[in-house]
Amino acid sequence: MIVKGNLVDCTEKGTIRIRKKNCIVIEEGIISKICSENELPDSLKNEEIEDYGDSLIIPGLIDMHLHAPQFAFRGLGMDMELLDWLNTYTFPEEAKYKDIEYAKKAYKKFVDALTKSYSTRAIVFATLHTQATILLMDMLEESGLKCFVGKVNMDRNSTDELIETTESSIDSTNKWLEVCESRYQNTKPVITPRFIPSCSDKLMKELGKIRGENYGLQSHLSENPKEIEWVKELCPDATGYLDAYDKRSSLNKSKVPTVMAHCVYSDEKEMELLKERDVYVAHCPQSNICLSSGIAPIRKFLNSGIKVGLGSDIAAGYSLNILNQAVEAIGLSKLYWRYIDKNSKPLELAEAFSMATRIPGSYFGKVGAFEEGFEADMLIIDDGVLNKDIDDLRKRFERFLYLSDECSMKAKYVSGKKIL
Amino acid sequence: MIVKGNLVDCTEKGTIRIRKKNCIVIEEGIISKICSENELPDSLKNEEIEDYGDSLIIPGLIDMHLHAPQFAFRGLGMDMELLDWLNTYTFPEEAKYKDIEYAKKAYKKFVDALTKSYSTRAIVFATLHTQATILLMDMLEESGLKCFVGKVNMDRNSTDELIETTESSIDSTNKWLEVCESRYQNTKPVITPRFIPSCSDKLMKELGKIRGENYGLQSHLSENPKEIEWVKELCPDATGYLDAYDKRSSLNKSKVPTVMAHCVYSDEKEMELLKERDVYVAHCPQSNICLSSGIAPIRKFLNSGIKVGLGSDIAAGYSLNILNQAVEAIGLSKLYWRYIDKNSKPLELAEAFSMATRIPGSYFGKVGAFEEGFEADMLIIDDGVLNKDIDDLRKRFERFLYLSDECSMKAKYVSGKKIL
Repeated sequence: MIVKGNLVDCTEKGTIRIRKKNCIVIEEGIISKICSENELPDSLKNEEIEDYGDSLIIPGLIDMHLHAPQFAFRGLGMDMELLDWLNTYTFPEEAKYKDIEYAKKAYKKFVDALTKSYSTRAIVFATLHTQATILLMDMLEESGLKCFVGKVNMDRNSTDELIETTESSIDSTNKWLEVCESRYQNTKPVITPRFIPSCSDKLMKELGKIRGENYGLQSHLSENPKEIEWVKELCPDATGYLDAYDKRSSLNKSKVPTVMAHCVYSDEKEMELLKERDVYVAHCPQSNICLSSGIAPIRKFLNSGIKVGLGSDIAAGYSLNILNQAVEAIGLSKLYWRYIDKNSKPLELAEAFSMATRIPGSYFGKVGAFEEGFEADMLIIDDGVLNKDIDDLRKRFERFLYLSDECSMKAKYVSGKKIL
Repeated sequence: MIVKGNLVDCTEKGTIRIRKKNCIVIEEGIISKICSENELPDSLKNEEIEDYGDSLIIPGLIDMHLHAPQFAFRGLGMDMELLDWLNTYTFPEEAKYKDIEYAKKAYKKFVDALTKSYSTRAIVFATLHTQATILLMDMLEESGLKCFVGKVNMDRNSTDELIETTESSIDSTNKWLEVCESRYQNTKPVITPRFIPSCSDKLMKELGKIRGENYGLQSHLSENPKEIEWVKELCPDATGYLDAYDKRSSLNKSKVPTVMAHCVYSDEKEMELLKERDVYVAHCPQSNICLSSGIAPIRKFLNSGIKVGLGSDIAAGYSLNILNQAVEAIGLSKLYWRYIDKNSKPLELAEAFSMATRIPGSYFGKVGAFEEGFEADMLIIDDGVLNKDIDDLRKRFERFLYLSDECSMKAKYVSGKKIL
């Protein structure tokens, strides 16, 4: 298959690369060549070209952190901080997913919306309910998106309607992983302790064992001052929040890395451990604003060589559009520079775009850029409504990034397969 | 005329008011009654009702501050602070409006976009070019929107291509006002010294005289630390930035109030003077983020009784959608609370909505709410894409406010006249 258009992606160095009217040659979902039409080898001269004319083609975006069951109340209840918000809005909603009929309806809307969004891949929290989680994974598999999904574990500090015993949490996790083993091509399970306050030490350690070397693990880290205080009380043995995870075997070496959402208040010591354990940070700027959490030190993470991707964190963030998160990330980094640390240079456009594509892409393998050997995740963007009169592709892309909600998508490919 | 739907507006106290399937009765552009269909008086029983079914109807939004000539580069060049940004991007673009053919093309795009936006009214900066400013005003008049427009004055500290002599600035302002006098129904001139660094003391004082009791005045205030330092140097006589305007006769009592954009760094003393001179603050949160300006103390303004509206500040802000500014205003107020002042309670949804409708509406007369005697500015909102399954109108509205870019408008009325 050959797809042609104006290619915009990030290089390994994190700069923006623009290739005007170039062809992407795809074999079995993998990019085998990128060149102008003239440069196509003779063997491909007679192949049909899917020519998208003057459209922009960008890599599929990656949502590193979101909660599928919370999609039902996105854009609502943005008037609290984390812990009150969980008890008031989140836990009651998540409890509803015990009812598989409710889950079916709600997850259908979520999967439809994610499919229509600019994201081709996502790392998703479900709820603690095994049946509903498998249902969600079935639907995601059907959509053609490529996702990691976690059945959530929580055996303490929740409501009566949304809690497991330690044993049932471990049992159901094992059973769920068994089901997943042979069921999916594109959808993978990820171990998902909600966060330290929701999981007893025993549960955490068992989950670390279950994770072993084959599974990834996702959770929340250092999001809100009150949450951090609470973790300190709960884990007197630990020198910090991430260290508490580490001491409970969450960060053991595995083929699939750990993802920690937020990291708003990670200090130098926590940064070192993030780096040492090869943890991906899921930066969720909109969520951090909406829950009054604060501004994460993203410049410092990047300087330390920590890998940072972007997350919508639905429903603490309200928009599924990861480019909106990229814009918010730039904005927050400017305020961080202004108010918190004049040595932390604001993020550049290219860095934010890289955090939406290439950096989190590495979590999935060779994903998130247009290079030989990379999986062909592509969005065909119609930016005509914004950019009718602009020739400069760099400017077209820049404006599209800021105003992508005003544009539309002509097509969406995941590993070379057209899903929209 | 009678229009029917789900009415959502702000009360005088600033709370959100919801009236399910109510009728707005309009006579000569003014609301004469609001009631259910059953309660319509006999004299109206046979009138045709424009029934918008289950749509939301909200007051037209008001953009208190934007630059029409900068629309051409919105979403571009967001990598500098104010003064560098003006010299690098803004002044070169504004210089192009000397060419009336260029102005015609560029302003057409701007007016089309503003007409299609959620705003029914705006307070607009043009450029220093009289002819292009009149052209813009002609186009806005034609659109049916109701706007104040300013021919910009600047006689110092600009580029050779974008500067006037003091005399020519005064002369052309007088001539421009003469032209405006009999030419427009809906479009009004407003005196527009760009900001203190662009206007000599002599020019400022003459503009104060020209303003007299009949015109409003708009300018910029306390946006960026370097700008504020510069004003201090330029005006050693003044005790502060606003005081410099005051001492140069800008804030003299007039039938039409003053609007000052930004006010990010206004201290207690400046707040007192804002209040004393009945100045409207145009809060432009997106712009304040993009230019790394900072976070304005909006809670303090509101507590002091200062009137605050929202501005897109195109092109330092990139989105014409004033609801996006409302969402950003809430977000910034949360960060202000978190990092700057724990006594400044974050803005509530109702307050942000009021800053988009009712508060700035008072600048235009009785505008911005659905009450007897108010001008009938109405947006008919189709929120079906978001809210198909929600009955609760308050929740529908809340989600619409956060995600309005995903919704569409069925119709737009300004003073009872359907313009879209």
